[in-house]
Amino acid sequence: MALIRNIDDVEMSPVQMEGVQGASMAMMVGRADGAPHFAMRSFRVEAGGHTPKHSHDYEHEVYIVEGTGEILLDGQYRPIRHGDTIYVPADEEHQFKAGTDGLRFLCFVPVERNCGGDTPGS
Amino acid sequence: MALIRNIDDVEMSPVQMEGVQGASMAMMVGRADGAPHFAMRSFRVEAGGHTPKHSHDYEHEVYIVEGTGEILLDGQYRPIRHGDTIYVPADEEHQFKAGTDGLRFLCFVPVERNCGGDTPGS
Repeated sequence: MALIRNIDDVEMSPVQMEGVQGASMAMMVGRADGAPHFAMRSFRVEAGGHTPKHSHDYEHEVYIVEGTGEILLDGQYRPIRHGDTIYVPADEEHQFKAGTDGLRFLCFVPVERNCGGDTPGS
Repeated sequence: MALIRNIDDVEMSPVQMEGVQGASMAMMVGRADGAPHFAMRSFRVEAGGHTPKHSHDYEHEVYIVEGTGEILLDGQYRPIRHGDTIYVPADEEHQFKAGTDGLRFLCFVPVERNCGGDTPGS
């Protein structure tokens, strides 16, 4: 079913994974909404916080909504800012780190992993 | 390959489809970048402009980056604004109309149509 949902109107839940600091997430459009191919999640990372340094068998497409920070990509930390769009291929190690004003971004994932099964957080 | 590309740094091309007025588009992450499942496109619609009123056999997931306007969804025009996330299911008639300050949004599509073949603009 069609839906309209503002990123300021959803409840954010802490991301509880090893290697995470000060990150929260809300599902914007996911499998529960009927999305057949990919899911949209909203993330906030507090100033100085970060997501886990990891890789997995599915890609990310990311849009930086607010703030500044760094992303680990191609083996180095690169600056990111409002308006950046990012493609993180499957199996590529990556990590988001928030700068002094925090970081807010949308992260899209396929609902199925490349090697089968549901993508976590889709 | 991984990429970072800002939405302010890409060239926008006019959308040339029947029923379009004042809309332009840039591919942010697509098949040409290696995206295996879904594509991210950036759209601008000038004040008073609109996208075509149409439907197709694949879904949209949309994020409103800037501006205000309306979207036709579930048979009625509903207001949209910065921060809105929208799910348009496959085969649902939809249209974006920009308000007086124009509209800027990201629109995600699967790279393959549900009924086979490449999605246009992916």
